[in-house]
Amino acid sequence: MPARLKLTLAYDGTPFAGWQSQTHRNTVQDHLEKTIRSLVGKDVRVHGAGRTDAGVHALGQCAHIDLPDDARTPADWQRSLNALLPSQIRIVRARYVTNDFHARFSVKAKTYRYRIWAAPILPPFEVGRAWHIIAPLDFGKLSSAASVFAGKHDFTAFAANRGKPVAERVRTIHRVRAKKSGALVTIDFEGDGFLYKMVRLMVGSIVDCALGKISLQIVKDRLSASSPANVARLVAPAAGLILVRILY
Amino acid sequence: MPARLKLTLAYDGTPFAGWQSQTHRNTVQDHLEKTIRSLVGKDVRVHGAGRTDAGVHALGQCAHIDLPDDARTPADWQRSLNALLPSQIRIVRARYVTNDFHARFSVKAKTYRYRIWAAPILPPFEVGRAWHIIAPLDFGKLSSAASVFAGKHDFTAFAANRGKPVAERVRTIHRVRAKKSGALVTIDFEGDGFLYKMVRLMVGSIVDCALGKISLQIVKDRLSASSPANVARLVAPAAGLILVRILY
Repeated sequence: MPARLKLTLAYDGTPFAGWQSQTHRNTVQDHLEKTIRSLVGKDVRVHGAGRTDAGVHALGQCAHIDLPDDARTPADWQRSLNALLPSQIRIVRARYVTNDFHARFSVKAKTYRYRIWAAPILPPFEVGRAWHIIAPLDFGKLSSAASVFAGKHDFTAFAANRGKPVAERVRTIHRVRAKKSGALVTIDFEGDGFLYKMVRLMVGSIVDCALGKISLQIVKDRLSASSPANVARLVAPAAGLILVRILY
Repeated sequence: MPARLKLTLAYDGTPFAGWQSQTHRNTVQDHLEKTIRSLVGKDVRVHGAGRTDAGVHALGQCAHIDLPDDARTPADWQRSLNALLPSQIRIVRARYVTNDFHARFSVKAKTYRYRIWAAPILPPFEVGRAWHIIAPLDFGKLSSAASVFAGKHDFTAFAANRGKPVAERVRTIHRVRAKKSGALVTIDFEGDGFLYKMVRLMVGSIVDCALGKISLQIVKDRLSASSPANVARLVAPAAGLILVRILY
């Protein structure tokens, strides 16, 4: 009988043109759809939890596919897909779900992590995996600025695409946590949803504050006002961003 | 006055054709020489501590260069070189040394690390940075096999190039240390010198033993005998190998 399979994926975003299918066929979704087609002999649409931009990584992206039957076990699917996918994309979990599960519409919360390497030299193994910041960062200011975002807010000033109605620009961030371990600074954001480039725009303002370029008050003002004058402009690079997990 | 500069380098070996200069000009040495030429306006030979193969990484490779003068500080050199080198090659330290220092002939000891990812799935961020082994590894056997190599031995059976006189195939390994943290297994080798592909050949035998394919006695036999019948054949992949540090 027809079956819906939920996939949990990890990928290194560096070699791909983002998640969402495009005509040049080097997105994660394109690779998945091509691989599934080679296994079932027909087109199967991959429904992702949400897109990630070019260069953005994932430890726990989710997607679902509708299959003609459930003849293969989830472990079979995982093995077969991993055997054919580029090594930078891995299916880390697969399981059958009921038809009321939808990878995008059933999302309850997402966690993103942003990685900053704050030191004069970026180690070669961190290339493409962190935002390299040479100027001294004030971690106390960084933590304070990060915590400003916790709660329910109108994130208009932190959305690259402001065409949506206001109601859709309100999001709740359940938890923000900044940590520092040597040169590595990570900021985790857990929220019910994120607007286009929202994490990278929040991190841009947080870093501007940690560098002493803007005050904590300006970060707060950006969050409370939707006036164009208060729009966040510094977008943190894609390379530092990781989609860590999705809660359903 | 003329000056000798010692460089300590880190690199991700993935994009390069190894350390040593070649005609196709994509080795670490080629990039260094090209960059130095662009800074001083003439050819300057880079003398490395030793070559690393394509795909092998370094945290602490060393080299020296002879400069026409010491007009720039080591910090200037580090900054200028890092500004022009590919981001996967970083000068992590630079300092002037006396002319009796030679990056290759003054080496007292080297430490190599080999990384193995022992689990069904290799995480995307580990691609090119570890040997992925799916079959169950016996870590006890792995540790025992690794410790066999400590001490002074004729490593003929663990050299890819056996054309050298026997006296030059004797090496002393001061310390071998195997560790396991989750799926990651690392083996550190500190020794006075290593023959061509010696670490990868030792790791090949250690893994064969940990997989139950050969006994500990066979590993010992290979080390004590130089007969062709006892030659180690499994070469661990370059991607798992890191030149960690060089002691002078």
